[in-house]
Amino acid sequence: MRVGILTGGGDCPGLNAVIRAAAKTLFTGGAEVLGFRDGYRGIINKNWMPIDKNAISGLLHRGGTILGTNNRDNPFNFPVKTAEGKTKYCDVSDVLLENIRDLKLDNLISIGGDGTLSIARELVEKGAQIVGVPKTIDNDLAATDQTFGFDTAVATATEALDKLHSTAESHHRVMVLEVMGRYAGWIALWSGVAGGADVILIPEIPWSLESIMQKIEERQREGKPFSIIVVAEGAPGPSGEHVVRERIEGSGDPLRLGGIGHLVGKLVEQATGVETRVTVLGHIQRGGSPSPLDRILATRFGVAAAELAMSGRSGLMVALKGKEIIPVPLDEATKKPYFVPPESQLVLAARFTGICFGD
Amino acid sequence: MRVGILTGGGDCPGLNAVIRAAAKTLFTGGAEVLGFRDGYRGIINKNWMPIDKNAISGLLHRGGTILGTNNRDNPFNFPVKTAEGKTKYCDVSDVLLENIRDLKLDNLISIGGDGTLSIARELVEKGAQIVGVPKTIDNDLAATDQTFGFDTAVATATEALDKLHSTAESHHRVMVLEVMGRYAGWIALWSGVAGGADVILIPEIPWSLESIMQKIEERQREGKPFSIIVVAEGAPGPSGEHVVRERIEGSGDPLRLGGIGHLVGKLVEQATGVETRVTVLGHIQRGGSPSPLDRILATRFGVAAAELAMSGRSGLMVALKGKEIIPVPLDEATKKPYFVPPESQLVLAARFTGICFGD
Amino acid sequence: MRVGILTGGGDCPGLNAVIRAAAKTLFTGGAEVLGFRDGYRGIINKNWMPIDKNAISGLLHRGGTILGTNNRDNPFNFPVKTAEGKTKYCDVSDVLLENIRDLKLDNLISIGGDGTLSIARELVEKGAQIVGVPKTIDNDLAATDQTFGFDTAVATATEALDKLHSTAESHHRVMVLEVMGRYAGWIALWSGVAGGADVILIPEIPWSLESIMQKIEERQREGKPFSIIVVAEGAPGPSGEHVVRERIEGSGDPLRLGGIGHLVGKLVEQATGVETRVTVLGHIQRGGSPSPLDRILATRFGVAAAELAMSGRSGLMVALKGKEIIPVPLDEATKKPYFVPPESQLVLAARFTGICFGD
Amino acid sequence: MRVGILTGGGDCPGLNAVIRAAAKTLFTGGAEVLGFRDGYRGIINKNWMPIDKNAISGLLHRGGTILGTNNRDNPFNFPVKTAEGKTKYCDVSDVLLENIRDLKLDNLISIGGDGTLSIARELVEKGAQIVGVPKTIDNDLAATDQTFGFDTAVATATEALDKLHSTAESHHRVMVLEVMGRYAGWIALWSGVAGGADVILIPEIPWSLESIMQKIEERQREGKPFSIIVVAEGAPGPSGEHVVRERIEGSGDPLRLGGIGHLVGKLVEQATGVETRVTVLGHIQRGGSPSPLDRILATRFGVAAAELAMSGRSGLMVALKGKEIIPVPLDEATKKPYFVPPESQLVLAARFTGICFGD
Repeated sequence: MRVGILTGGGDCPGLNAVIRAAAKTLFTGGAEVLGFRDGYRGIINKNWMPIDKNAISGLLHRGGTILGTNNRDNPFNFPVKTAEGKTKYCDVSDVLLENIRDLKLDNLISIGGDGTLSIARELVEKGAQIVGVPKTIDNDLAATDQTFGFDTAVATATEALDKLHSTAESHHRVMVLEVMGRYAGWIALWSGVAGGADVILIPEIPWSLESIMQKIEERQREGKPFSIIVVAEGAPGPSGEHVVRERIEGSGDPLRLGGIGHLVGKLVEQATGVETRVTVLGHIQRGGSPSPLDRILATRFGVAAAELAMSGRSGLMVALKGKEIIPVPLDEATKKPYFVPPESQLVLAARFTGICFGD
Repeated sequence: MRVGILTGGGDCPGLNAVIRAAAKTLFTGGAEVLGFRDGYRGIINKNWMPIDKNAISGLLHRGGTILGTNNRDNPFNFPVKTAEGKTKYCDVSDVLLENIRDLKLDNLISIGGDGTLSIARELVEKGAQIVGVPKTIDNDLAATDQTFGFDTAVATATEALDKLHSTAESHHRVMVLEVMGRYAGWIALWSGVAGGADVILIPEIPWSLESIMQKIEERQREGKPFSIIVVAEGAPGPSGEHVVRERIEGSGDPLRLGGIGHLVGKLVEQATGVETRVTVLGHIQRGGSPSPLDRILATRFGVAAAELAMSGRSGLMVALKGKEIIPVPLDEATKKPYFVPPESQLVLAARFTGICFGD
Repeated sequence: MRVGILTGGGDCPGLNAVIRAAAKTLFTGGAEVLGFRDGYRGIINKNWMPIDKNAISGLLHRGGTILGTNNRDNPFNFPVKTAEGKTKYCDVSDVLLENIRDLKLDNLISIGGDGTLSIARELVEKGAQIVGVPKTIDNDLAATDQTFGFDTAVATATEALDKLHSTAESHHRVMVLEVMGRYAGWIALWSGVAGGADVILIPEIPWSLESIMQKIEERQREGKPFSIIVVAEGAPGPSGEHVVRERIEGSGDPLRLGGIGHLVGKLVEQATGVETRVTVLGHIQRGGSPSPLDRILATRFGVAAAELAMSGRSGLMVALKGKEIIPVPLDEATKKPYFVPPESQLVLAARFTGICFGD
Repeated sequence: MRVGILTGGGDCPGLNAVIRAAAKTLFTGGAEVLGFRDGYRGIINKNWMPIDKNAISGLLHRGGTILGTNNRDNPFNFPVKTAEGKTKYCDVSDVLLENIRDLKLDNLISIGGDGTLSIARELVEKGAQIVGVPKTIDNDLAATDQTFGFDTAVATATEALDKLHSTAESHHRVMVLEVMGRYAGWIALWSGVAGGADVILIPEIPWSLESIMQKIEERQREGKPFSIIVVAEGAPGPSGEHVVRERIEGSGDPLRLGGIGHLVGKLVEQATGVETRVTVLGHIQRGGSPSPLDRILATRFGVAAAELAMSGRSGLMVALKGKEIIPVPLDEATKKPYFVPPESQLVLAARFTGICFGD
């Protein structure tokens, strides 16, 4: 039996732990394991490494993915260099399918987010055998109770808040921390509650400057002339508008600046007159050794995906439901994000402990 | 409205976070909050501190409990000094109940384990108004999906395993780590999976020396002349016997030595001839700043308990079920421990990744 | 005997440890200790708290300063509100000196950087009794071998580099990390060496884009299609120019954006075509619990300053020389920064391990 | 040019960083690098691995040593199996020297402690070319201001103290932590000061139970009914006697139990009646990722040793003096330990902050 593994999309602590656990499980069934490099690109280019016991040694606690990953690996819209040196986007999915046959893969374990698993679903429809492992650092997938990497990201953000606290307090400042969460505010909500934030702004709850000002002034009256604000990168502006990062003239996309964190900082400083500092935590949230919880969840996902692959299943992805890992249809991964319910218990608990959501 | 809070039993990261969240919630209802010192002992001796906004400032991330705790605070069997200076154990529960009336407490939030909540239940039967918050670092309570403190203890044990790994590998040694878990092996199981242990011994699964030797030898054949063994303190001996710590002659109870970790180390070294080192992690597992997850869970428990107390409920404790905090009867806390099911998915996943349970 | 303590300038891990150690030492001499709030502002406004054993309990490992700090506390140029509500800057140093007499202070321990200690020197010239404790997170003071806070800042930056590594490797990216160091590149140099950076850019060494490109391409040829660049905030641009953060229109100073980190990222991405991400670590470097080394150094500084104060010395600050704490004249603090010598052993060692300084 | 590297003696964070830096430096000189496995044993058995760029990738932050280490590798007293299967100890140093010639080694970098470097010195006398790198986690070498691994061990011990603090406080207990330091008390002293210990017991200062009791009672009078005691494993008993770990009957050496930590715990509990708990930190202190400081020091040592080796020097070891790495004669490593001077500034500073040394 031959099974391929690939990782796609953004980095996430625990990817290596999934690879390790899946490979170890496949070895128990005598399977040969191929690791494709840089997502689907590795199948299209037949760029792979054999995964044996040596290859996975010491992987459990390592961040990142030994297989590499890529954001431009969509086989249905793949960048191909033309004879004239230009880039053309083509559907090379048939090449991919042929390579799968050629390499005699019995199954493929595809570890990735929304995009990676959508592609998996389309490939399954065209006849491929694929099992998915969901990956999103934002934990915004309705199909699974939790995704690996989220706990580590929350820990990184919470540690940053713990550090900002002392400076805020010493300098009587407002400190704004922008964390990840493009569509859903889970990281902001969890780290904000764990890090003792005073204000949390998330995509799901519209906010007004007045509300934040009231909170800051209430704290000042109580002898606490400093405040901590956590903002999800996808939180709206004060009028509900979508905030894009501004650009330095001439810079490419990756160097975009500003964004909602800086906007909130500017508005709060102007409105309150309190010195304000803004930190954008950025890619640090995606890196580092996974937390124990993430190592365990990633291990369980890897084992379960390998078991599905060995028993010839396809079109499924693994998911956590309560205490059990269960298989669900692959298209569960591509449903709309699991948003923070504004009336959820955790939001209400946060309110009881004095956290303001700007509403 | 007046509500008391106390903490009982062993230390556990998150106790302060429960106190803080409960107090903040009670303040929103205008309640006055009394913090009793050293468990029920604080009510019996009317030893309490007023809990105001100042008292709970900065508590979220602090380990321990500002209220203190005590293991000899059972009002039904309370140590009282006689005129002759001896210690007599008496039932002083009526004193406690009278003091509750005297202090005009409308409700009491009792945060503690098995013992503390059993007492709470008995006091409720005698007419007291009490809401419980379950606390066990071992996470062995069937009534709640998780208890606060467990995630932190697992993190501490996993970090120790990460550190032992490099020495085991460099010296070609067997390293044994004894972790907490008197009746249930949850800490050993979770930290063992997260820390990449080779062998995990828990109370729920009988083990034989042969099985461990096979695992160690299998690893040696694969070019890995070192192994990591995690042992729960309550794991049985090789014949299923209960292992008590041996004593240094003349020492009191707290200085007991040896125990299952050292026994396993001795047996493995004798059987394999491989140099073996034993570490007993001990109380370090109960200390330190709670993990983000534990801060959140403790906060939610505190809020929920305060809500129950404010609405006049009694005889209940809070529990996590799925994503919700729900009230359950207090006697749920005193049911027999929630043991690791030997056929559970996590144990099976551990086996797939090569972990030996000695069976 | 009465001794005052104040903290001035930017936040720095270890300030509380200095306060604690100085106070404990002063208590042994029977001195009364007054803690002034927000730097010299606290003396001018007679805003102080008594420092007793309770006030310093638990301070050793806490970041920040319980006394607060302020950047607008210069008594020789102090902001005073006029009758018309405008702000006028006045010399109120005589008020300060009178308050010192009024409060019967025998000595004052002033903990701060360049600015704070310059003011101390001027006040000493006007007759005040002051002992200084040097504080700069940048470790750029020639008078002392090391300053507290630096080790913690290096640890924070190194941890960020460890995290960025996995993402850089998985995504084949260039990751740029901008760290503190306005005039001297110590934090960038130490964290870059400890975090395994490929390129380190510091104020002391001019750099060219070609040199960085060569390094990145050399790594690509060796099968490492990713690189880590650490940039000190005060590093020059590629033509040696001073780079100021660009501003979002209408924003105040604290919201400045861009800066050298983003400039380097933009240039590298344009020149190499490799996806580049930029992280500005910012104030996180100033916060958090001090490292063991910083706790010890801060403790030793606090003890030594208190001993000087108790023996009636003035115009001195404490400094580390080899393994000893010694007193040096206060104006040592205000000499020009201790720059990284480009030919120093550490820079050469970094070069031997393959680090490129852009020259 | 061909240079060998080996690591000997106990594990120590930073060994891999030394190997990496030495190899990188040797590569710049075009040298071929051989890594011998398990100390001198690797030369005797010609058991080595080629060290190329791949072999050292990712080593900087990894604890342990990829070369392995061994305590029974003394070529002058080497265990050899006889025909009858017994173990005989022989002088095989000539074999070792011949293998060095045979493998055409131009130089050997020997990284290790007292024992490893004493052997190096003897081999140099017999004609070998060897450069040493000193390694002792105890930091008790007079020849160098600091050794790598010490800062990490202090951090591990300090973190344990931070965790024990909350439990001590919550339970009104005395917590005893036994840390490494067989002959010198540096780890106990540094971690005790950094971790806010109340009592520190080290080999260099005799102590009496009365003195400890006074300290504990003084704290109780001040409303602090808990205390933290740090004990170096080599601290004497109360009558100045050497304390050996007691053995469980039938156990081998590695399973020795008790020792000074448990003895102190027993005596304190008996004398004060306060519940006491003892933790022996053990091998955890030798493991884990090296701290930034240790990574830098190890890197500098590795570079300097490689430079010496490349320039044909022998009989020297590298050492830190102030801010410079300098070569010193190999026999500096074997001089008597650098003890904590009881009148040193750090001890006096500790006393000023209220720490009792039991004298």
